[in-house]
Order: sequence, then C-alpha cells, then structure tokens
Amino acid sequence: MDSTPVALRFTLPELTQLLQSKEEKPDTSALFQIIEETRSSRYDSVCIPLTNDKWRQRWHEMCIVEDETKPRDPSAEQKAELWRSGVVAFKREEVIPTTLDEATSIIGLASDWIYLDSPDEWVRHDSELALLQELAYANYLSISNVILPPPRNREHVASYARAVNAALGSLGYTSKTQLSIRLPVYYPSVAPKISSETVSVVPPSEKDIGTSWEIWDSIRSICDSNPRLSISLDLTPPLPPSATLLQRWFGEPLRHVFLPAASFIPNAKGYPVLTKATQSFIRDVVKLRPTIILSQVSAKVHTAGGSSSYLQYVRHLEKTSPAIVAQETEGTVENFSKGWHDWLQAPLQPLQDNLGSLTYDIFERCPAKYDQYEKAVCLALLDRPPNKPINIYVVGAGRGPLVDCSFRALERSGRKASIFAVEKNPSAFVTLQERNQTSWSSQVRLIYGDMRKMPLPPDNEKADIIVSELLGSFGDNELSPECLDGVMRILKPNGTSIPVSYTAFLAPLSSSKLFHEVRSRDQALKDAETPYVVSLQAVNILSGSGNESRSSTQCGPKIQECWDFIHPRKDAILDLQGFPITNSHNNRSVKLKFHIPTAGTLHGFAGYFEAVLYGDIGLSIHPDRMHNISPNMTSWFPLFFPLKDALYLPENSELHVSIWRLSDKQRVWYEWHAENFLPVSVTAPEPRSPPRTASPPPAPRHGATLRPTTPGATISPLLDALSPLVPPGSPSPPPGGRGGGRSLPQIGTGLTKSATTLVKIGQTNLHNPGGRSSWYGL
Amino acid sequence: MDSTPVALRFTLPELTQLLQSKEEKPDTSALFQIIEETRSSRYDSVCIPLTNDKWRQRWHEMCIVEDETKPRDPSAEQKAELWRSGVVAFKREEVIPTTLDEATSIIGLASDWIYLDSPDEWVRHDSELALLQELAYANYLSISNVILPPPRNREHVASYARAVNAALGSLGYTSKTQLSIRLPVYYPSVAPKISSETVSVVPPSEKDIGTSWEIWDSIRSICDSNPRLSISLDLTPPLPPSATLLQRWFGEPLRHVFLPAASFIPNAKGYPVLTKATQSFIRDVVKLRPTIILSQVSAKVHTAGGSSSYLQYVRHLEKTSPAIVAQETEGTVENFSKGWHDWLQAPLQPLQDNLGSLTYDIFERCPAKYDQYEKAVCLALLDRPPNKPINIYVVGAGRGPLVDCSFRALERSGRKASIFAVEKNPSAFVTLQERNQTSWSSQVRLIYGDMRKMPLPPDNEKADIIVSELLGSFGDNELSPECLDGVMRILKPNGTSIPVSYTAFLAPLSSSKLFHEVRSRDQALKDAETPYVVSLQAVNILSGSGNESRSSTQCGPKIQECWDFIHPRKDAILDLQGFPITNSHNNRSVKLKFHIPTAGTLHGFAGYFEAVLYGDIGLSIHPDRMHNISPNMTSWFPLFFPLKDALYLPENSELHVSIWRLSDKQRVWYEWHAENFLPVSVTAPEPRSPPRTASPPPAPRHGATLRPTTPGATISPLLDALSPLVPPGSPSPPPGGRGGGRSLPQIGTGLTKSATTLVKIGQTNLHNPGGRSSWYGL
Repeated sequence: MDSTPVALRFTLPELTQLLQSKEEKPDTSALFQIIEETRSSRYDSVCIPLTNDKWRQRWHEMCIVEDETKPRDPSAEQKAELWRSGVVAFKREEVIPTTLDEATSIIGLASDWIYLDSPDEWVRHDSELALLQELAYANYLSISNVILPPPRNREHVASYARAVNAALGSLGYTSKTQLSIRLPVYYPSVAPKISSETVSVVPPSEKDIGTSWEIWDSIRSICDSNPRLSISLDLTPPLPPSATLLQRWFGEPLRHVFLPAASFIPNAKGYPVLTKATQSFIRDVVKLRPTIILSQVSAKVHTAGGSSSYLQYVRHLEKTSPAIVAQETEGTVENFSKGWHDWLQAPLQPLQDNLGSLTYDIFERCPAKYDQYEKAVCLALLDRPPNKPINIYVVGAGRGPLVDCSFRALERSGRKASIFAVEKNPSAFVTLQERNQTSWSSQVRLIYGDMRKMPLPPDNEKADIIVSELLGSFGDNELSPECLDGVMRILKPNGTSIPVSYTAFLAPLSSSKLFHEVRSRDQALKDAETPYVVSLQAVNILSGSGNESRSSTQCGPKIQECWDFIHPRKDAILDLQGFPITNSHNNRSVKLKFHIPTAGTLHGFAGYFEAVLYGDIGLSIHPDRMHNISPNMTSWFPLFFPLKDALYLPENSELHVSIWRLSDKQRVWYEWHAENFLPVSVTAPEPRSPPRTASPPPAPRHGATLRPTTPGATISPLLDALSPLVPPGSPSPPPGGRGGGRSLPQIGTGLTKSATTLVKIGQTNLHNPGGRSSWYGL
Repeated sequence: MDSTPVALRFTLPELTQLLQSKEEKPDTSALFQIIEETRSSRYDSVCIPLTNDKWRQRWHEMCIVEDETKPRDPSAEQKAELWRSGVVAFKREEVIPTTLDEATSIIGLASDWIYLDSPDEWVRHDSELALLQELAYANYLSISNVILPPPRNREHVASYARAVNAALGSLGYTSKTQLSIRLPVYYPSVAPKISSETVSVVPPSEKDIGTSWEIWDSIRSICDSNPRLSISLDLTPPLPPSATLLQRWFGEPLRHVFLPAASFIPNAKGYPVLTKATQSFIRDVVKLRPTIILSQVSAKVHTAGGSSSYLQYVRHLEKTSPAIVAQETEGTVENFSKGWHDWLQAPLQPLQDNLGSLTYDIFERCPAKYDQYEKAVCLALLDRPPNKPINIYVVGAGRGPLVDCSFRALERSGRKASIFAVEKNPSAFVTLQERNQTSWSSQVRLIYGDMRKMPLPPDNEKADIIVSELLGSFGDNELSPECLDGVMRILKPNGTSIPVSYTAFLAPLSSSKLFHEVRSRDQALKDAETPYVVSLQAVNILSGSGNESRSSTQCGPKIQECWDFIHPRKDAILDLQGFPITNSHNNRSVKLKFHIPTAGTLHGFAGYFEAVLYGDIGLSIHPDRMHNISPNMTSWFPLFFPLKDALYLPENSELHVSIWRLSDKQRVWYEWHAENFLPVSVTAPEPRSPPRTASPPPAPRHGATLRPTTPGATISPLLDALSPLVPPGSPSPPPGGRGGGRSLPQIGTGLTKSATTLVKIGQTNLHNPGGRSSWYGL
C-alpha cells in the first residue's frame, strides 16, 4: 500500500536555531544534515521557507513606505527601481536551500510577507515581483512544490489570482515546479483573541467556511483550472463539528494539509490526539493522498508522547480509515476500484463493436452480479407453473456466464427448462460452442446472430424467460431498450424479461480532477460531449436532500431518478414482423431540480442505474443503495456526464437539469443542460394595477395553441402570445416511462405570489454530440 | 439610404379568402399574384404561414389524444408511427407556397400549433418532427426566413431550445434558411380579459418584460448563439410607458418586429398612430434595420387612412428617427460611422508599425480634433510669459497636422515660437520635408527618430510645449504614456505636455453581434484576448447608475473611470540619462463595481477615453460627454474588450470588474476579469456564539503580514491566516494615478452586519494575452 506522505515543517526561527547547531561539513551542508535526520525519523519530506529575514528586510526597505507623511527616501526608491528592472539578484545569505541535494526533499514556502492582494497597488506589484523571483529560484533548484502565502483580502482576490496565474505562466512548460495555495480551512469573521500562550477562536459559521472555498474557487477559475495549481489546506483553525461542510474539498486538488502540533488536543494521558471532527476529516482525506505537513512537534506542546507521537497518530488514523481499510479488503468494490479512480473510459458499445475475450473475462469476474442473476432466474422459474415446458433464452450470451447462471438456477429451483443462447459476436460464438461441448453437455441450443434480427421460432420454442445483461452504467446507455425491443417478438404472451426494468439516476458533481481530465484530452470540446465510465473518487456531489431547500419550489433528493424502461412494453405499436415502427418510444427526457446547500463548482453529473432483475432481486450502483441491493458488485463504475465549462453554484441555489435520451434511425445519444436559480426575497409586493377582477376562464381542454385561428376576429391572431406563461416551478409530470396517453397542456394560472422568487443566475451550454462521434450506434 | 424593410402579414383566414378570390393562371399562381400586388403597394415582402389547416388537422388526428379516458384508436397511433418513421410526406393541398417564384419574397411562419415546450413529452416529440418537416420544406424552397411560434412554458424552455437547436442543425451548412423566434415583448403575469371586440390587458410589470428576454436568453444560449437564429419581437401587447426597459433588445439579433394594426391607436381624426412609447421604440429600432411586419391593414381597424396609412406612418417614423437623421447629416459622428457599425478592427500600433499615408489621411479628416488642438496650443502659448522664446515640439508629427495646428495657434495667439517636429516613420518623414518646403517656409526643425531615443538638445532648445497625438480609444492603449515618458527629458522644468492628462473609462455591454463576430474568427480563443476598435451600434450597456442599487455596497455610475495618466510625471525616478528605470509606474489596475438594474448577458466591455489637452480644452469619446467636450469628433471609435464566454447577469446584480494595464520590458497589455454578485436578504441573523466580548485590538500599522514570525511562540506561525479576511465591498483606494506613497493594509474589521449579503453567483475567465500576440510592442 502506498501510504500518505507526511512532511515536517520548520518555521524560520526553528530552522535558524537548528542550522546554527549544525557544523557545516565539506560534502554535507547543515541544511542537508537536518533533512537527512528528519527523513530518518520517517518523514517523507521537509517543509521550509525558501528565504530568510535578510531578504524580507531588504524588500521591506526598498518597497514599503513606513510613514506616508514623511518625504520618501529617493535612494530607497532608486534601489527598488533597480531591483524591479531585474538587475539585482538574491544574495547567498538571503536564501535557505542552495543545492540540488537539499532541494530534492523540500516543500518550499514562498515568503509569507508576500502580499499579492494588498489594497495598495504598489505593494501588490512588488509582491508579485518578489514571488516571481522566489519561484524562479525554486525552479532553478527543481523544487517540485512551492506553497504560497494565503489570500487575505476578498476584495482583491482577483489581483492575487492574476499574479498566481502570471507566476504559473513564468515557469515554462518543462518546469517540474507546482504551486499550492495555502488556505485556512476557514476565515473567521471576527478576529481571534490572542494572548501570549493561547488563541481563543470563535467557532466558525457556515459562511466563514464557505468564504475559504469561494476564495479558492476564484483563484482556480482565474488560473483557468491550471493543473499545476493545488491547495494546501491549513487546519490551524479548529475544525467545525460538522465535517459535511468539508466535503467540498474532496472535489478539489488537495495536495497538502497543514496540521500543526497546536491543533492537536491532549488526551487523558496528555498524548496528542485530534478532535473527532479532525480525526474524521483526516481519515477521509487520506484516500486522496495529500501530504500531511506536521509542525512544532518538538515544541513540547503536549506533555506526553514526545516529538514522534504526532506522526504515529497520523499513521494510526490512516490505518483505521474506513476508505483505506475497504481498499485493502479483497472482494470489495473499493479494492476492485484501486488504480481506476477518476480514470475516464469511453463506455463500451457492445452492440456496435464485438467485444474481445479479455473484456468478457473482466465482466465474468464479478460473482456478485451473477449471484443476483441466478437468484432472479430461480425466482422466475418458481413463479411458472410446474410441469409445463419452459424455454429460457439467454440473449447476448457472450462467453456464456448467464447460461451458467441459468443452469445453476434450474438446479436450485428443481425445475427443468430448455436453454437457448443467442450471440451476434462471431468470435464469442466459438467459445459458446466449445463450452456447450465441455461444460453444458450440448444441452444448449446456440443461435448465431443479432437478437433483433433472429428468425421467429415456432410457438412452442418461443421464450418463457429472456435473460440478458445489456445494461450500462446509466442503465440504457448500452442500448438495452433497443435490443430487447427487437427480441420481444420471440417472447410468449406471458413471458418474462430478466431484467424486468431499469432506472437511470443523476446527481450534480464537482471534480477539478475530472474536469481537467476531460479538458486535457486532444479534442477537448468534442470530448466534453460524451459521457465517460469513471470510478468516482476525487468528487463532491453538490446536491443536498431537497427538504433542506428554503425556496418555494420543490427540489428532489440528492440523487434523482431520470427515467425507466420496462420489458416487455405494454403499449407497443409494432409492424407486421413484430418490430417497433420507430424508436420514438425509447426517447426520454426529464427535468430535475436539485437543491445546492453549499456553494460549489459544477463540473458535470454522475450517472447511476438500478435494475429490477426479477421480484425483489436487483442490481444497483446507486451509492446509497448498492450495498443493500447488490453488495460487492464490481461490474459497473458510474457514468460521468462532463460539462465543457464549469458553472458556479452559490449556496442555497437550485439547479434545474434537463437531460434527454434521443435517437434517430442509426443512433442513440444524450443531451444535457442546466440552469441555475437563486431564491431571492421580494421585500415589497410588486405593484399591479388594475387588480384582477375575475379569474381567467379555464383554458380549453386542448389549449389555445391548437385552436385554429378564428376567421374575421379583430383581435390579433398573435394574441396567443398573451397567454400567461407557464412559470418555472410549475408541476412537471412525474418522471418515469412514457405512457400512451398524452394530452395538451393545462396552462398555468400565473406566477407564484410567495415572497420568494427564483432568480435565474446562470446556465451551462447544451451538451450534444451534434453530428459527431459521441453517440451509440444502433 | 437603405430604408427599413416592411412586410405585410396575412393570417391563414385572410390568405384563404384572398386565394379563393384569385384565378389561377398557367404562369402566375394565385399566391404569386397576391405577392406581386403586395409588393406593388410598396411592401418589401409577404409574411404567410407555410402550411394550412389540412396539415394541422392531420397532425392533430395522428398525434393528439383527445380524451385520455377512452382507449386510443390504434390506427391513429399506427399512422403517427408511420409518419414519425419518415415514410409519409406533405400532401400538395397541405402547404401554401409551392414554387421558387412565390418563395423569393416570403417570410414563412411555421405552424403556430407546434408546441415544442409542451409539458407532454409526446406532444414535444411530435411537434419537433412537425417543425423539422416544415423547415425541410422551407429550405427546399430557399425561403430565407422562417418564424417559429413563441415559447409558452418557462418550465420547458430547455426542451423548446433543444428542438430549435436540432432544427438549426438539420439545415445543413449551405442552407440559406434562417430561423427567428417569435417573442411577445412581454408575457403578462395574469391572463388578458378577452371580450368579443377588445382585449383589455393589465399593464406589464418589470418582471413580465424581463421574462420575455430571459426566455430568449435561454434559447440563444442553448443554441450556442447560433448566428442563424434571430428574434421576431411581437409588439401586439401594448408597450410599457418606460422604453428604457426595451434597451436590452438592442444588443440582440432583432430581425423582425410584429406590428399589427390592432396595436395602433386612432388619433383625433381617426387615423392610425402609435403610442408615444411605441413611436419612440420604432424610431430607435430602425437603426438596426429589422423588417417591420404589419398585419390586418385591410381589416378596417381604424376609421380613417385606409390600408396604406400604416405603412405611411412607419415610413414617417423612420424619417423622423433621430438616429437616421443624424446618420444622414454630413459632418456628424453618426454619418462618419455609417458602414463601420459593429465592425471589429485591431487597434493600431503606431509605435510598433509605421503607418501608411492613407491611414494618416483618414486621421487628418477630423477637423474637430485639430480645432481642439489648435485651441489648446493657443491657450498654452498665452499662459507663457510674452517676449520669452518658446519652443514647441510636435512629437510623432506624422504628416504634420499638429504642426499646422501649432502655426494656426501662433497666429491666433499672436505669439512667436520655434517649432520642432519629431517623427520616427522614415516614409512620413519624407512628407514632412516636403511640407516644410511647400507649406511651412522651412521654419520647422525636423528631427528624424524615435522620440524616446532622440538626443538631448541644448538647454535653450529644450521644449516649452510638447504636443502629441498618441492617444488610442482607451487613452493609453497606443502607448502614449511610454512614449511621452521617454521624451520628457527634453521638456523644460516648467514645460507643458499637450495633452496634460487622459483617463480611461469602462462599461459592461451586451451584444450578440459583437460576441458572434469575435467567436467566428479563425482563432476564436486567441482573438477573445484582444480589445478591438468598434463603432458600437447593436449594443446594450448593461450598467445602471449606481444609486439605483438596492444592495449594501456602493456601485459607481453607468460608465466608470479606470485610471488616468498625467504628463509630465511629478514623482519620476529616472536614470542618469533621464529615462524611467522601469515601466512599473505605468502599470495600472482598478476594480469597478457596476449595478445591473435589468438582467442581461455580458459579452464584454466598452472602453472610452477622455483627455485634457490644456486648460478646459479636451477630447472625449465618453458617450455622455463627447457631444459637449469635443462635438463631431470622428477620430476614435470605442474599444471593445471581448469575453470568451458570455456571462449571465440577473436583475439587480452587481458586477465587479477588475482590469489591469501591465507591462514588461518589451510589451504592454491588458488583462480583465469579472465576478458577479447578487444581494440576498438574510432573514435570520447568523448564530454566533460565544458573543464577542471585546473589540479586536487595532491591527498594527503594518499589518501582521509583514511582521517577522515571533521566535519561540507556541501559537501556530500560520495564525496570520486567522486574521479576519477583508470582505468584498470594503472601500478601495480611489481610482487614479499611482502616487509615490504606499503603505501596508489596514485590515478590515469584519463582515457587514446588514441584513443583505452579496452572494457570488458567477465569474468570467481571466482574459490575458498570455505570451501570445495580443499585446502592444514597446
């Protein structure tokens, strides 16, 4: 197991003292000795400032006007101008590391007096030059991580971020140096009271915590999500009791976590431990493998345990992290997913492409899934009258795992049945023939061909049970609806499809990592039109449960149902051969409303599915239900629907997501779009005169829109446009299957009169494959 | 003059009656006769439905379930499926135009029963198919404009827009057909009362008007600002008295304006006229040349004037439109700008590139500018003590217009002076030599070379007055500050620069047209990083005057000052040769806060400048002041700072814009960025415990951030991060020049306690040329 890296941080005074205590040797500098000693105490690296007080003093003398009322010393200004012009370099005694050997294990801290968001334009200007100079030096030494001082001024965060962006641009493409923004886990809205020994801090409000993230989001956005930019989260301020407020950091590029000794509390015996909230956060965050930066371990902040106890405690938390434990346990989804986290894969198109044996092999390695199939077939068999002949068709049999399931189900149920296996992949059909001879005693009737085109069997050979495994991560995305539609011709009138139905689910997510992965692809714009199969890890689901919403309209739960498909269709209009005339009935659309409790950046949507195989036997990758419905099933990672551009979602906003499943004769594809709203209180009622004297007449059954224009009327024929608009938030038809019944609209009765209105504040692009390649071929 | 096109619309009943009254002739169809007659009545085109009631009936029978409680007629469903599958075409008798001849002058109306935003998924589906079928037919006939029925359902606007996007995609790249969305000028929030003869309509609220635009914005956005998509604004609902609410449409692609006879009112004599608000709107809108679509002109809605009076009245409004009148008057800015509206030009770089004689020739055609220079030089001369020798240097003399000004000023003031002319363009220097012989009696001392590098003259030949015309549309964008800095060495201690100073101004704007122009360029992303010179026409400035804002922070006026430059600098730090050591003092940055009174889509910023030449003589392209300061000056169009992506700004939001002028040794460039906020009322005070018992101690003069870390302190050295953040909305230093004085920050005292907080709702990218070509070479 790769363990979480841990670094030890030395402050400038600590380091100065230590350096003085060492003897310089010809081959081993004092600093290198300190680094070696630290590493031999099992730290992975050392976090130190790049420069010292001499540099601070020189910069200060040049660039800071001590007293504005006195005339400026022209020689200081002259010195500053010469420095700005680039003709003055660092002096040897102003910097701390100087050799490549030292630099290898260093996390560098840029000078903490660099004040990129000062209200003073000159201080900003000269801070930026100082930063560039320090970074150029770090880059020269190949120091791979430099941590920048935290932003301090919300008003000038754009200036801070612009300077960071310039710094990133100054590094050059071949540089190994990455920048990390030091960010307190929250900014207190009131100043802490500082006495000589202790700090008393007011517990943070939700807003304080949000501000920290909001500042980061501005910086990230201005730096165009530069992959070389990360966060160093500073846990110096005590964590709030509710760790859910920290979820947002899991979608962000978290590279370092500052954990000074002072943020540990003593346990009963005086040993340093962390508060419950911090324990829980650390246990969670280790799965993202940030470097934990300890500090002041030798400052005797705690009476027991000594300097090594902090590191030991962190290692203990890591070992008892549920995420890490699950990853280390054979047979779990977490164990299976190791190495696949946040890796984008194009979804399979088993209908269009014939799969290789290796792909089938991976599928078949999930015993949990086939256990469910076995149970489902067994239940379906038991629901059939005994002593009647039963035909089981395995359609899309592949290399035969569902044939195996069917045999096991027959044995388990004590029933008898004929088994047929249909497969269109000519190569897999060879395997089926071999298995029929070797494993199935030639009892299986093998049928070669596309299930949608197979010849109609005689009535007594029609199917009682059709078993298929055509589901994708979003249920229908591998075209199960279309394939099963095509094979329903061979099902007996009271026959059963396994699966009986499946449902697609969606949730909005934030993930810097996935956003960057999509954008860094060769054809970034095109590639943002395709959903991907991904094991979601560095991801934050942005939606809350709808009932937290303070707004007037009704939001649904955190993860919402899009639509479902049921087999066989009840309302099928078929041609003479039993085929659907069009695929219109497999088109779907839904509009979902998510409540966003805390601010976040929308990067896309997570797609999940849940299927009813038969009775109460199901398959699920819905995060909240998978462990109950189909535990340890590893066959599917979620689907990720990306966005081309990130969308900022403020706290307490409402995200209205439209997603469509569309098709034509050759293809099936998805389109998606979102609008974002914020409930805003209307303090004064809107003036409206004259008052409405009577209710409008009820709209005719089929609405004005389908009425022919009245001949000879003197009112404008465009008067339809005067019908009150159906406002957002009006009830939608419930999601689900498309029934045969459809009717014309009931026009809404007008806008809500509540004191809160939903104000639109943003939207995404429409994501659609256009005429391009990101659809699924029929 | 191109006049505004006017079309006549026939409703289906009107058209049916007319068609029946005509005889079909072998070469001239009944429809073609109607079209010809209409055109001979001075209409430019005819607006008619593409299909008739027969098609409506067939679609309705196939696709609409009349009564959901009764079982569906399977044969109707079968017919619908066959139609959906594409095997059924239009019947001849279902469509109205059939020949290319007819189609040439037609604006087609798609069937008004097409209901793309129906709450019923099947109605949406079948409406989309019907639309595609009608558009394919219009495309076949090369009908260039098809108007779609209006959106009716805010809840399903995304579905409406997705279908329109699919329709646009169906047309093919070579198609001439454009789509236009019919949009009522507002959606009433309550239903109109309709009696048999009249319609009584409740006056619209601001919100009603906003809804119409908001719906359009969603459609436009989902269709990715497709340039083939436009608006047909329907003025059937009576206009609100305040026409400022309609300003937003001037930034949009307005192609048609529906103006039915019923929206005219009778004047005292019974002739049709329009209300004041509508008159004013029509007079304004004609400058964008939309097609005005009249209708019901023969329905005798008014007692006097007859059917031609409506058209006559529209022509009258056009002729009395202030915009059109100004365009037709020689010597006005409007007249000069004709043909240049919304045309993107790269700003000149006269420092880097030597201009051609033709470019100088265009410059010199603006007498207004040189009049101002003449006055300024004259005033400056009069302010000098008489009888002392005066040296005037014209720097960047070009072909000599400012030399001419100087001579005229000498004559006017009755003073004497030596005139020197400095020019670095070797070709223009030839013209200067010629003009010195022919026009200036060889009285001008010509100096060839870059003014920043010219040799220092002896003291008695140094300049009393330096005259230059180095200003760009944004003041400093043609590097006037850098050029003048370089030439100040030759100015006497009490010498004067003309101009004395100049100021840059900025305002946020919306313009579909400009946004599209930038995006359609070859290197769209790169090209969105450069400002352009543009005569702004189809543009809407989004900001309001700050005092309309209901929020707690202070917004500035509609057009805000960014920064200024003053010559000569007072605080110059120079090297021994008299040159500035760095260009840092010419860097600028400002953060501006604009109030956005009505929702709009931000596409970029308009940049203007104003200069003080001398005394009270100035140059200005600030829209509100140019007519007073320098009337009829045509030398500069505004600058346009584009955005890569549009940003939605809701009503009553606050736009915080940061813009920087940056430089290094070789280049000067601008970067810009905006964040958007919405004031949201906080109903309950935030819980905060324990209560603050004492005020925090005042921050030390130079802030925690520049204090050295206290050695040996047990509190975390990262505690600085616990300083309260300076919140947004804290006072910024006033814009203007950068003085020598600078100091460290006064940390703010915490967040505002008002009941309204600013919630961040969005942001733009940072726009910067990032090492690429969009900077100005020094």
